[in-house]
Amino acid sequence: MRSVPDPAPNTVAIVGASGFAGALAAAIVRRHPSLALVAATARADAGRNLDELYPRHRADIVLEHPDLDAIAGRASSAIVGYPHGASAPVVAGLRERGLRVVDLSADFRLGREAYERYYQPHEAPELLADAVYGLPEFHREAIAEAELVASPGCYPTAALLATAPLAGLATDLIVDAKSGASGAGRTASESTQFVTVTENVSAYGVEGHRHRSELEQELPDGLPITFTPHLLPIDQGLLASCYLTPREPVDAGTVAGLLHEAYDDEPFIDVVDAPPGVRDVRDTNRCAVHGTVEPATGRIIVFAAIDNLWKGAAGQAVQALNLMLGLPETEGLQ
Amino acid sequence: MRSVPDPAPNTVAIVGASGFAGALAAAIVRRHPSLALVAATARADAGRNLDELYPRHRADIVLEHPDLDAIAGRASSAIVGYPHGASAPVVAGLRERGLRVVDLSADFRLGREAYERYYQPHEAPELLADAVYGLPEFHREAIAEAELVASPGCYPTAALLATAPLAGLATDLIVDAKSGASGAGRTASESTQFVTVTENVSAYGVEGHRHRSELEQELPDGLPITFTPHLLPIDQGLLASCYLTPREPVDAGTVAGLLHEAYDDEPFIDVVDAPPGVRDVRDTNRCAVHGTVEPATGRIIVFAAIDNLWKGAAGQAVQALNLMLGLPETEGLQ
Amino acid sequence: MRSVPDPAPNTVAIVGASGFAGALAAAIVRRHPSLALVAATARADAGRNLDELYPRHRADIVLEHPDLDAIAGRASSAIVGYPHGASAPVVAGLRERGLRVVDLSADFRLGREAYERYYQPHEAPELLADAVYGLPEFHREAIAEAELVASPGCYPTAALLATAPLAGLATDLIVDAKSGASGAGRTASESTQFVTVTENVSAYGVEGHRHRSELEQELPDGLPITFTPHLLPIDQGLLASCYLTPREPVDAGTVAGLLHEAYDDEPFIDVVDAPPGVRDVRDTNRCAVHGTVEPATGRIIVFAAIDNLWKGAAGQAVQALNLMLGLPETEGLQ
Amino acid sequence: MRSVPDPAPNTVAIVGASGFAGALAAAIVRRHPSLALVAATARADAGRNLDELYPRHRADIVLEHPDLDAIAGRASSAIVGYPHGASAPVVAGLRERGLRVVDLSADFRLGREAYERYYQPHEAPELLADAVYGLPEFHREAIAEAELVASPGCYPTAALLATAPLAGLATDLIVDAKSGASGAGRTASESTQFVTVTENVSAYGVEGHRHRSELEQELPDGLPITFTPHLLPIDQGLLASCYLTPREPVDAGTVAGLLHEAYDDEPFIDVVDAPPGVRDVRDTNRCAVHGTVEPATGRIIVFAAIDNLWKGAAGQAVQALNLMLGLPETEGLQ
Repeated sequence: MRSVPDPAPNTVAIVGASGFAGALAAAIVRRHPSLALVAATARADAGRNLDELYPRHRADIVLEHPDLDAIAGRASSAIVGYPHGASAPVVAGLRERGLRVVDLSADFRLGREAYERYYQPHEAPELLADAVYGLPEFHREAIAEAELVASPGCYPTAALLATAPLAGLATDLIVDAKSGASGAGRTASESTQFVTVTENVSAYGVEGHRHRSELEQELPDGLPITFTPHLLPIDQGLLASCYLTPREPVDAGTVAGLLHEAYDDEPFIDVVDAPPGVRDVRDTNRCAVHGTVEPATGRIIVFAAIDNLWKGAAGQAVQALNLMLGLPETEGLQ
Repeated sequence: MRSVPDPAPNTVAIVGASGFAGALAAAIVRRHPSLALVAATARADAGRNLDELYPRHRADIVLEHPDLDAIAGRASSAIVGYPHGASAPVVAGLRERGLRVVDLSADFRLGREAYERYYQPHEAPELLADAVYGLPEFHREAIAEAELVASPGCYPTAALLATAPLAGLATDLIVDAKSGASGAGRTASESTQFVTVTENVSAYGVEGHRHRSELEQELPDGLPITFTPHLLPIDQGLLASCYLTPREPVDAGTVAGLLHEAYDDEPFIDVVDAPPGVRDVRDTNRCAVHGTVEPATGRIIVFAAIDNLWKGAAGQAVQALNLMLGLPETEGLQ
Repeated sequence: MRSVPDPAPNTVAIVGASGFAGALAAAIVRRHPSLALVAATARADAGRNLDELYPRHRADIVLEHPDLDAIAGRASSAIVGYPHGASAPVVAGLRERGLRVVDLSADFRLGREAYERYYQPHEAPELLADAVYGLPEFHREAIAEAELVASPGCYPTAALLATAPLAGLATDLIVDAKSGASGAGRTASESTQFVTVTENVSAYGVEGHRHRSELEQELPDGLPITFTPHLLPIDQGLLASCYLTPREPVDAGTVAGLLHEAYDDEPFIDVVDAPPGVRDVRDTNRCAVHGTVEPATGRIIVFAAIDNLWKGAAGQAVQALNLMLGLPETEGLQ
Repeated sequence: MRSVPDPAPNTVAIVGASGFAGALAAAIVRRHPSLALVAATARADAGRNLDELYPRHRADIVLEHPDLDAIAGRASSAIVGYPHGASAPVVAGLRERGLRVVDLSADFRLGREAYERYYQPHEAPELLADAVYGLPEFHREAIAEAELVASPGCYPTAALLATAPLAGLATDLIVDAKSGASGAGRTASESTQFVTVTENVSAYGVEGHRHRSELEQELPDGLPITFTPHLLPIDQGLLASCYLTPREPVDAGTVAGLLHEAYDDEPFIDVVDAPPGVRDVRDTNRCAVHGTVEPATGRIIVFAAIDNLWKGAAGQAVQALNLMLGLPETEGLQ
C-alpha cells in the first residue's frame, strides 16, 4: 500500500449529504471561502449530482457511495448527516482515520446513560468522553479544542438560546415549540404530505420528545422542564416560546438586560425588542431572541426564532467547524 | 304611525354581516331549517349581495344599511357582528326594540370593571346585568333564559373548553394559543398580508392580550393565567396548548376521565386520544380536546382545537341562539 | 348455498374507501338522505374506522377487507375508488354480481384503443360498450340508464365544462391547468411532501398527460388540444385556464351567452362575471365558469374552477349515482 | 451656493426603498463588494431603519425623506422604486443632477405612444429616447452605454426569456403566467390578504394586463400575444408557461438547441431538462428555462421560472447597474 499524503487542511467531506441538513451543509461548505468541499456521500442517491436533488443549493457535486478510506484520503474534516444510531459507527470510522468530525445526529450529544434512556444502546460509547456539545454560544472554547462535536438538535438550539441566560432565576420551564416540516427530514411520509400539513397545526411527542434530554443536560440540574413540539405549515423555521416561573419577582428590564449581557457580543444572536417571526431569520444562521415579563403573573416569557436547517443544524455545524479549524467563527455564514 | 305586526318567531337579522364572523353567521342562519334570515346589514358594502363578498358561503342576501327600526319590523332576533365598542349602542338599540340578541363582540362578555380595564368606557352598562356569557357547555341554562348573550372570544372558547374541567386541580395555567389569520378579521393590514404571514409564525399581545380577561372571569379566582397568542400561516383554525401545574400529583387517566366526564354528553365536544389538529374540526362547530400528563414533570397538558370562525364565533352564536329560542342545540350546525 | 335476499335499493358500498376520493364518497353517501352506506372497504387499512384516517369527514364506518360476495349481499350499488388498472377486475366482479357501479378510475372512461394507448392492456374490455362517461352536464340521459358509469378525471371535468359549449367555434385549444396536491392521491411521495410543494409551482406531464385522452374523446374530432397540468401549493382545488382560437371573430358577449345557454339550468354550474378562484367552490360540487374574449387578439379565454375531490371525483360520482337511481340529481350534494 | 465635490463612483442611492423591490435592491447593494449604499429614501417610513421593515434583509440603513439634492451630493447612481407615474418626475430630477438611473417602474420601458395607451400621459417624455430596456440578455451593450435603464416588469422578464429565442418560429403566443403575492407590492389590500390568497388561485387582468405591452415591444412585430396572469398562494416566485404555434414543424431537440444557443453563455440563465419549479430559483437572480414540443400537436411549450423580486425586479436592476458601471455583470448577485 502506497503512502497517501495527508489531505490538505480545511478539506471537508459531507458524509450523508442527501438529507436536508447534510445537503445544506454541503452547499454552505461549497461557498465557504476557506473550506474546500472535497466529497459528498449518499447511499440511495449515489451517482446523482446534488444539484438534481436540491437545485436551489447549487452545490454541484456528484454524490458518491460512502467509502471511509476514500474520504479520509481527501478530507481532513467531515460533517456527518446520518440518522441517529446509524451515525455512531460512521463517526467512529472517521475518527479512527483521523478526521475532525461534526455530527448532526443525536449520537454524541448526551452522556451514555441519557442517550440510552432516550434513544437506544450506543454503538461507540468510547468516543463520548471527548465529544463536545456544539452550541458555540455556551461551549466555544471546548469546541475550538474538540475533534468531535455533536451539533445540537434544532429544538434545543432555540430553547437553550432563549432560556440559558435566565434559567438560573427560574423554578420551572415550559417550552412550547413550533417547527416547520423540514424538521421532519426528507423521507416521505403521510404525516409530512402537503395535504396533511397545510392549514393545520398540532402537537406531537407530547409525553416525552427526545430533544428534552438536551435541555436537561444543558440547563441547571433539577429544573423541571416541559417540552412540547408542534408541527406548523411552514418549510424552514422554528419558534420556541418559553415560559419560566421566576424564583423571585423580576421585571422586563432585568430579563432584557440578562439577554443583552449574554448575547450582545455574539455574532449570530440578535436580542430584539418584540416577539420575533421565523421569517426574520429564514435562510440565515441567526437566532432572534426576545424576553419579557408578563405583568399580571410575573412570569418570564422568552422567544427564540431560528431557521431549523441553519442555526438548528447545518449552519451551526459549520460554525462549530470554523471554531475547530481556527477560522473566523462567522466565515461562510454571513 | 301604523301599527306593525310583530315579526314571526325565529326570524333573524345579522347586523354587521360583512366581516368574517357575521358573514358566516348569515350563511349558517340561511341554511338553518328552523331559522329565517330576514336581513343582513353592512355599512360600506350596503347594496352588494353577500355572495359577491363571500362566494363560497352562498348566503345570497343583499346587504342593507343598518336601520334598527327596519330590522325590528322583520326580525325577532339578531346576531351582531360589530367591532367592540361599536357594538354596545347597536345592541342597546336592538334590545330596546325587543329583539333577542347574540353579540359577537367583547362588549357584553365581562363585568363593567373588567371591560373598562381591558377595553374602554362602556356605552351600555345598564345591559350588563342581564347579559349571559355564551359558552353553552358551561352556561347552557342561563343562555336558554337570556335575551342578550355575549358570544365568547375565539381564544377563550378553546382555552376554557380545554381547561375548565381541570382548572380546579391546578395552581397555575399557561395558554400558548395559535390562531389562523382569519381571527384578525377582514380589514386589510400589513400584518395580515399573505407575504407577511406565509412561512412565518410569531407571538403577539405578549404583555396582555384582552382575551385573557375572559379566562380570568370564567376560571377559578386566583388562578394565575399566562396567555400568549401566536399568528400562524393558516386561514381558519385555532389550537390552544394549555399547561397546568397540578396541586396534587395526577395521572393521565384521571385527566382524561375528567374531560370525558365533562364532555361525553356534549354534542360539539370530542375528547380524543391524541393531540388534535385544527384540520380535524375545520368548517365545523366542533371542539376536539385531548389531555394528558407529562410523565417527567407531572404537568397537565391539554389541547383544544376549534375553527375560530365556527365554534370560536359564528357557529357558537347560532348554538346559543338555538338555546334561546328553544330549538335543538345542534340544529343547523351539523 | 342458501338464497340471499337482494339488498335494499339505494344501499351503497364504497369499494376502495381509504384514498382521498373514496373516503369523500363514503362521507357524502353517509350524509345522503336517500342513500345508505352499508360497506366501505380498504386493503391496508382494513379494521380501522374511516374516522381515524379522515377525522374531518365523520364518516364513522369500519373499513373491511374487500370481499365482493359480502358486498353484494348488502349493497345494490358501489362506488369504486381503485387505481386505474386495479379497478377493472373489481368493477367486473361487482357487475357480475348485479351491482350498479360508478368507477372513479380511468378504466372505463375511454374506448379500448384509446385506453390501451394511454394506459395499459384493458382487463375487462367486454364492459366498455355499456360504460357511460359520467359527466352529467353532457351525458345525463345515458347516465340515468347506465349500470356502469366511469366518473371523469378531475382535469377533464374542469376543461370540458369550460370548453365544450365553445369548442365548435375553435380551431385549436390550449388547456393550462392548475391543481392542488390532493389530486396526486394519498400515497406519500417526495414530490407531494409539504416542503416540496409549499411556495412552489411547476408543470408536469408536459409531453402527454393521460387526461388529454378524455378531452380528445369528448371534444370535436380533429381539434388540436394542448393540455399542461401544474401542481400548486393548495390542497383541494383545480383551475383550468383554456385558450381557444375562434374560427370566425367572436365577441365576449357571444361567449358569455353560449355559456349561459349551456349552463343556466344546470344545478352545479355557475357562469360568473369574473375569473373564478378555486376557493369559491372549495368543498362543494360546483363548477364556476367564466368566459371572455381578449380584445387584442380575439382569442377566447375560459376558466373553470372546481374542487378536484368533489366535482372532480367523489361529488360527481354521487351526482351520477343519483341519476342512475332516479333520485334528484342534487340530493346529498348541497 | 458652495461647490459640492462629485460623489465617488459606485455610490448608490435607492430612491423609494420601502417597497418590496426597492428594499431588496437596498439589501443587494448593501452587500455588493463594489457598490456603496449611501442613501435610501422613503416617504411614509422616513426615519425608520430599513431593518425594522424587513428584518431579514439586514440592510441596516435609516430611511430618509427623498431630497434629490441631498441624494445627488452623495450618490453617483440611483435605483428608483416608485410606482409608475410617480417615478418619471423623480427620474427626471435625478438625471438632471447627473445620476445614472435604473428605474424599476414602467415609466421608461415603452415608447411614448405605447406607454400612454397602456398607462397614462407621460411626465418626462424627453427622456424616453435615451432610455434602454434593461433586459441584459438581449440589450447588454445598450445597457452598458446607457445612463437611464428601465428595468423590465416581472412577467415580461420571464416571458421574454422563455420565448425570445423561439418567437421567430411562431405564428402566435400564449403566456399563462403565475405569480406569487409579492408581485402585487407592499400596500395592504383585501385581494392580497392571507385569507384571500391561501388555498386559492385565480386569473386577473384577463382582458389586457399592462405587462403585455412589453412583450409586444420586444417580440417580433405582428406576433399575436395572449397574456394571462394568475395569482398564486406563494410569496416570491413567477412561472411563465408559454405556448407557441410553430410556423413549420419543429422538434423538441431543435427547441432545446435554440435555448441552449441563446443562453449557454448567460451567467443567470439555466436551460434545464424538465419543467422548472419557482423554488429552484427562489432568492436568486437566476432564470430556469425549459422548452419542448408537445408530440400530439407539435406545439412548442416553454417555461421560465424566476424570483419576481430578484430577476423580475431588484436583482435585474443591479445586474443592469453592474453593466452601466463597467463592473462584472454578476457581481453582488451570486
